[in-house]
Amino acid sequence: MVPLAVLAALLLAAAGSAHAQILAPVPPGPSTFASRGEVVPKPASINKTAHFYVLRPANFQFVVLDHAITRYMRVLQQESYSRPRSAPRASAASAASAAPGRRQSWRSDPYFRGHLTSLRIELPGPCEPWPYPHMDEWYELLIDDKNREQSPLARLYVNTVWGALRGLETFVQLLSPSGDGSSLVVNVSAVTDSPRFPHRGLLLDTSRHFLPVDDIKLELDAMAAVKMNVLHWHIVDDQSFPWQSSLFPELSEKGAYEPGMTYSPEDVREVLQHARMRGIRVMAEFDTPGHTRSWGEGRPGLLSACHDVAGRPDGTFANIDPTKPENLDFLKQLFGEVAAAFPDRMLHLGGDEVPNFCWDSDPNILAYMENRGMSGDYRRLQADYLTWLTSEVQRLNRTPVVWQEAWQNGDFRPGDVIVHVWLGHAMDLMKEVTRRGFRALLSETWYLDHLGTSWQAMYRVDPRGFAAGPDQLRLVEGGEACMWGEMVDETNVHSRVWPRAAAVAERLWSPRTTTDLVSAGRRLEELVCRLRRRGVPASPANGPGYCPH
Amino acid sequence: MVPLAVLAALLLAAAGSAHAQILAPVPPGPSTFASRGEVVPKPASINKTAHFYVLRPANFQFVVLDHAITRYMRVLQQESYSRPRSAPRASAASAASAAPGRRQSWRSDPYFRGHLTSLRIELPGPCEPWPYPHMDEWYELLIDDKNREQSPLARLYVNTVWGALRGLETFVQLLSPSGDGSSLVVNVSAVTDSPRFPHRGLLLDTSRHFLPVDDIKLELDAMAAVKMNVLHWHIVDDQSFPWQSSLFPELSEKGAYEPGMTYSPEDVREVLQHARMRGIRVMAEFDTPGHTRSWGEGRPGLLSACHDVAGRPDGTFANIDPTKPENLDFLKQLFGEVAAAFPDRMLHLGGDEVPNFCWDSDPNILAYMENRGMSGDYRRLQADYLTWLTSEVQRLNRTPVVWQEAWQNGDFRPGDVIVHVWLGHAMDLMKEVTRRGFRALLSETWYLDHLGTSWQAMYRVDPRGFAAGPDQLRLVEGGEACMWGEMVDETNVHSRVWPRAAAVAERLWSPRTTTDLVSAGRRLEELVCRLRRRGVPASPANGPGYCPH
Repeated sequence: MVPLAVLAALLLAAAGSAHAQILAPVPPGPSTFASRGEVVPKPASINKTAHFYVLRPANFQFVVLDHAITRYMRVLQQESYSRPRSAPRASAASAASAAPGRRQSWRSDPYFRGHLTSLRIELPGPCEPWPYPHMDEWYELLIDDKNREQSPLARLYVNTVWGALRGLETFVQLLSPSGDGSSLVVNVSAVTDSPRFPHRGLLLDTSRHFLPVDDIKLELDAMAAVKMNVLHWHIVDDQSFPWQSSLFPELSEKGAYEPGMTYSPEDVREVLQHARMRGIRVMAEFDTPGHTRSWGEGRPGLLSACHDVAGRPDGTFANIDPTKPENLDFLKQLFGEVAAAFPDRMLHLGGDEVPNFCWDSDPNILAYMENRGMSGDYRRLQADYLTWLTSEVQRLNRTPVVWQEAWQNGDFRPGDVIVHVWLGHAMDLMKEVTRRGFRALLSETWYLDHLGTSWQAMYRVDPRGFAAGPDQLRLVEGGEACMWGEMVDETNVHSRVWPRAAAVAERLWSPRTTTDLVSAGRRLEELVCRLRRRGVPASPANGPGYCPH
Repeated sequence: MVPLAVLAALLLAAAGSAHAQILAPVPPGPSTFASRGEVVPKPASINKTAHFYVLRPANFQFVVLDHAITRYMRVLQQESYSRPRSAPRASAASAASAAPGRRQSWRSDPYFRGHLTSLRIELPGPCEPWPYPHMDEWYELLIDDKNREQSPLARLYVNTVWGALRGLETFVQLLSPSGDGSSLVVNVSAVTDSPRFPHRGLLLDTSRHFLPVDDIKLELDAMAAVKMNVLHWHIVDDQSFPWQSSLFPELSEKGAYEPGMTYSPEDVREVLQHARMRGIRVMAEFDTPGHTRSWGEGRPGLLSACHDVAGRPDGTFANIDPTKPENLDFLKQLFGEVAAAFPDRMLHLGGDEVPNFCWDSDPNILAYMENRGMSGDYRRLQADYLTWLTSEVQRLNRTPVVWQEAWQNGDFRPGDVIVHVWLGHAMDLMKEVTRRGFRALLSETWYLDHLGTSWQAMYRVDPRGFAAGPDQLRLVEGGEACMWGEMVDETNVHSRVWPRAAAVAERLWSPRTTTDLVSAGRRLEELVCRLRRRGVPASPANGPGYCPH
């Protein structure tokens, strides 16, 4: 029997909202638009009855039966889920004595089924140390009516620890305040649930603006709350190179905004560990051959040099020069270090927005292309480079992911790369990519930097929203909400990502038929306050209102 | 001689950004797009030379010569400007010894003019206790070349304490880090400055979402940094009534979102005091006869009741019912209390968006209108009400301000009201309002809740951007950036207001000819980091980059 501090903290956070009364009629008005004890994303199957139990967080245990998992749960306990806010919330118990009258209402309520003091988690099989693509996230959560004998009232069945994390999140979201300040109520319910898409991601860009590790961790907390499972870490780009390489320390020494604005190997491990404990993969992106201006600061000769009409260098640089053997050698070493630092099976290679300029005026590149009879064919220069890079990365046992242009300009075969669609007529392209046998991810419409895109618009998108057979549709692995960093940093990133990213999370988790905007809006309204209790400053979802204290 | 702790804290905050070297060449790139030691809003006249002084915040005094003001400055000292961040910054002095080499560069620099240890503030006249419309904000700031004898190197001339606050803000903004971690540099300069418009406001809406007092105070800090001088406090509306009335406590007891989400008389005084110390007026808005749904919660009978086709009340309510004498009596008492609570000469009466519904089905109102031979003339019902209300408010020695619809639907004469333009063809309306002799305020294009409106678009607007003679143009008193609260609360209000509101602040302060977007962009870039050092989480202004530590 293992009482899990981590989940107790979540319970205390849920108990904090003690404004509402059990079974009180719901008056109209924006403050009560929020749902009560509903789950985001909506589970595949949920059967909730009017009967309910009362649960006191201070008097509740999670019971784990599998010893392999017990050890893993101890690791989880070492992680601190608890937020600064949870400490004062714990004292809410003392407030209960101030309003003892309300507790009596449970006993007289015909739906009251008793007190719940434990949730038993039945976990088969050995521990899986790291989350991975297509991991099993299925769970079944049963909160029984009283009548069964010999069996605990609340049980969570799963195949893996990842399913346990998803199921525990659902359990916590099903709770709502009882009104006495220290207890929670949960209805007699049965939930069977698993994700529709295996890849449910959020892209964070730490190059256009640096994001402190604590803010990345806060994003991971929020992702776990909506069952997202991939952090796409767009870690470097033109503007800065915050990743500290041990082999090439000058990359961040010269390419980061400031010495303090870097991610050390220890910082990266901290992010990976925080993500792992929440069942979230971390897919790094090192985008080449464009988007690399900051790489050139610490690596002279890496980039192609623009020349003016008189044939003199004009002092500006663009794409990596893939014609120099020393550059390929550098990249081979660098990606080796990257693969060692980021254990996830997928590695994003970018390949988007590669301009010809500098390539088309650098004498070194022009001579190389002429010698090979490919003058003017910059598509081929790019394709050859990406073919080389993806084969190197596959040798490192990584599955490359590329943005759509790299696929459009490349010479790939199915299985070489996963294609990430972000631009243009997305459904046409998703259909074409999968028709040709490639796996695909969708981000079009899910750009969080587009302020005009509402959560409703994001919610309406379906990554499999095109006509095709089941085998082809199955090649759609999911998608990602993208928080590009040009106009966000730690001051506004959280309020800009949430709650809109939760609409994407629900689209990627819940059944295709979950499309009711009113229902989703009510649950997002509840989610915003839930996220805030966990320390994530999510912004208002639907309009006027407030989070009860 | 009075060393002012308040300004010393600002100085320490400025010293915190110690990344840059004096006179180092400016390399290209986004991180250096920010200006260095420039002022927002741009002063009316500034003459800055290459010669500079070095100043150590720990070794610097503000010297005030007028005893009336000395007393007032002591009051200022009691206010705590210092942010949590300023404490660690103070220890930057110890970092100086780590890099002693750089200090030598001052002495060898041909532009170095010496150390600056004081700023003398020459203040005539008696103290003005509260800021007021058309207060004198003129100042002249002189930082002399060394050659003058008998006179302090740095002097600030003003007519009022308000001018002193504006001049001190300019002085602080002219400082930039010397590079040694504890000193600042300031160029030999002469600034003569006063605002183009007397009314430079920011609207905050605390009804759609409640804003804690600390967040309102943080907004006031930011406003002071850009010389804004009016907080338009849109304190109540349909959604909630957070203002605690002593005469009618049930208004907030029933109309606030939660008991804790109210502004007590003490809270209001705290906001007023914080504003006063920064030379900011607080103009409250109690919007009637529409936008009053929350008023009805605590005041049954105040609102008109909608009736269905069968003549039965349908349970919904809209506008105040102005036909009942008891309602007018209530409003008279309420506005009396409001006028006592908010000392500013202007009081905003709203009057926008008054729908006919409920008025056009409430039998009480229909009978009243029929008896007076005005059946169907809802414009006249509204006009009569507003004529009554403005005369009541004028009797309280307050100048009423109304939104444009109230003026368009009303029967006002010039001098009765100031007209606040927010909708439609704004310049045509500004011209028409002033042509008819009314004073006007502009907010059109300056709605901060419109996420698609860039700071550049806000900057381009000129409240006097229509053809008219000087007497007519002078009726334009200024304008306000409006942060309507439907989608913002404490999680995102600061990053959504700043830096865009600063573009409005500069438009309203600086000369008409200050229109260079590149120059403004560089100064906003510097301002964002300055605001952050003062604890205001302003969001990025222009794109990728960072604030130096």
